[in-house]
Amino acid sequence: MPAKKNGNSTTVGLVQMTCDQKPESNLKKAIDGISDAAKRGAKIVCLQELFRSQYFCQTEDIELFKLAETIPGPSTDAVGKIAKQKKVVVIASLFEKRAAGVYHNTAVIIDATGKVAGKYRKMHIPDDPLYYEKFYFTPGDLGFQTHVTTHGKVGALVCWDQWFPEAARLTALQGAQFLFYPTAIGWLPDEEQSMNEAQHSAWETIQRAHAIANGVYVAVVNRVGKEGKLTFWGQSFVADPFGRIIARASADREEVLVVDCDLSKIDETRQNWPFLRDRRIDAYDGLRLRYGE
Amino acid sequence: MPAKKNGNSTTVGLVQMTCDQKPESNLKKAIDGISDAAKRGAKIVCLQELFRSQYFCQTEDIELFKLAETIPGPSTDAVGKIAKQKKVVVIASLFEKRAAGVYHNTAVIIDATGKVAGKYRKMHIPDDPLYYEKFYFTPGDLGFQTHVTTHGKVGALVCWDQWFPEAARLTALQGAQFLFYPTAIGWLPDEEQSMNEAQHSAWETIQRAHAIANGVYVAVVNRVGKEGKLTFWGQSFVADPFGRIIARASADREEVLVVDCDLSKIDETRQNWPFLRDRRIDAYDGLRLRYGE
Repeated sequence: MPAKKNGNSTTVGLVQMTCDQKPESNLKKAIDGISDAAKRGAKIVCLQELFRSQYFCQTEDIELFKLAETIPGPSTDAVGKIAKQKKVVVIASLFEKRAAGVYHNTAVIIDATGKVAGKYRKMHIPDDPLYYEKFYFTPGDLGFQTHVTTHGKVGALVCWDQWFPEAARLTALQGAQFLFYPTAIGWLPDEEQSMNEAQHSAWETIQRAHAIANGVYVAVVNRVGKEGKLTFWGQSFVADPFGRIIARASADREEVLVVDCDLSKIDETRQNWPFLRDRRIDAYDGLRLRYGE
Repeated sequence: MPAKKNGNSTTVGLVQMTCDQKPESNLKKAIDGISDAAKRGAKIVCLQELFRSQYFCQTEDIELFKLAETIPGPSTDAVGKIAKQKKVVVIASLFEKRAAGVYHNTAVIIDATGKVAGKYRKMHIPDDPLYYEKFYFTPGDLGFQTHVTTHGKVGALVCWDQWFPEAARLTALQGAQFLFYPTAIGWLPDEEQSMNEAQHSAWETIQRAHAIANGVYVAVVNRVGKEGKLTFWGQSFVADPFGRIIARASADREEVLVVDCDLSKIDETRQNWPFLRDRRIDAYDGLRLRYGE
């Protein structure tokens, strides 16, 4: 049954899934998820980070560059086809081969026409034990953008970006109603339960804060399941412009969340707490410094 | 009994109080709070926003400019005396008269010597029903700063600043170990309980996020009690650099929180999740724009 809607709302779909070692089967699962979300009323569907493969950045292996593809390419063709068929916008996170030796972690915004509406190349690249992304991904050079689609103004950011208030702010200032974060974050082996909970809480908290600071919807789609040493923590969620979690998926199961987002809440929140009115743009030069001391 | 400390920690004190209509009695209560915090081991004590008076910005009344004072002035003299006596740093939020017609909402950092170590003039000024601050306060012109004191590197921000990730970031980039927020925030009359809870949650969440994004301690000192139409929600708190609330005061009582802060957690947090390493300072120019569209 389609989600209940009011007059000024947009329904989003979040496809949280496990991935196996066969890209074709992951792609098929993602397409099934898009279909399911669309059937239940979603108009904008977001897939998790690098949904077409397992999270390969747990090791630095030159062979794994073979997973990359061009944009447009086979995955955007396949996703574009279902997007057009179901008349939905899709945010698809892909391993992009731009040129020999130039690869990106890219979120493609595919419009409900099936055409590529734009792309965002992950700007903040992590490099931590089991997240060796600086080996694979050239930092993005397209900046922070909002994409105007058939079903709304969409900002896409990717995983590590979620820790940077600058990224959320810059994207929201371009007019985004929604910030979508495809992510792949999980727990390391042998970490204490209390640390696991603290990490998850910090992750959810800072993204709720992006919703609050900017008066936008934040939708986060995280991978689930165990791959190699990482147990991805799922718990994809949508926060409203006041930072309230209005839907959250489980920590251990595949799930397609379909969530109605009342767009009037953007106006309402920003009128009541008008932060964008009061930014001190005359005093923010120092944000372009690495460190001020 | 002094709070338990490890080798590399600093104990902070937060004085959450009600205010009556007599500035002298509020000042006395604040000084008693500083003494109490010092006796229990605090080395840096923060008072709530405009602690010397009731929160007068509920109305626009020219008579109320009489509450303002110079800095240095009688309040910094009185607070300086107790700071020197107890060898504690104090963050004191005052209504500053800078010149005829130029008033600020100013946090003064008084060192353990009793001398003024620096001041911060509130940069982001609200103006909402019952918070008519733009009438009283000229926006600050000292920028975002960290003050090196006898007991640590202290950043002070004030109330409405708490909604702006830019303010926290800029202050942390100056080397702050602690961000102190003197605040005066409360619930409006006749608001629904669910809205009250959502407001408090948003307030706490975004300040926890400043701790997370910057790997610093965040200490928030909020007013408590009913004044005019506002019921201040208290719940002063300290968040560690991972955004965990390590102490929280009640919603309806005066309280002096004394909290030990392990400074090694700043290094530890920033090593594990090195956000400051990965900021894209080449791509943040747009933060100086009002709106990007």
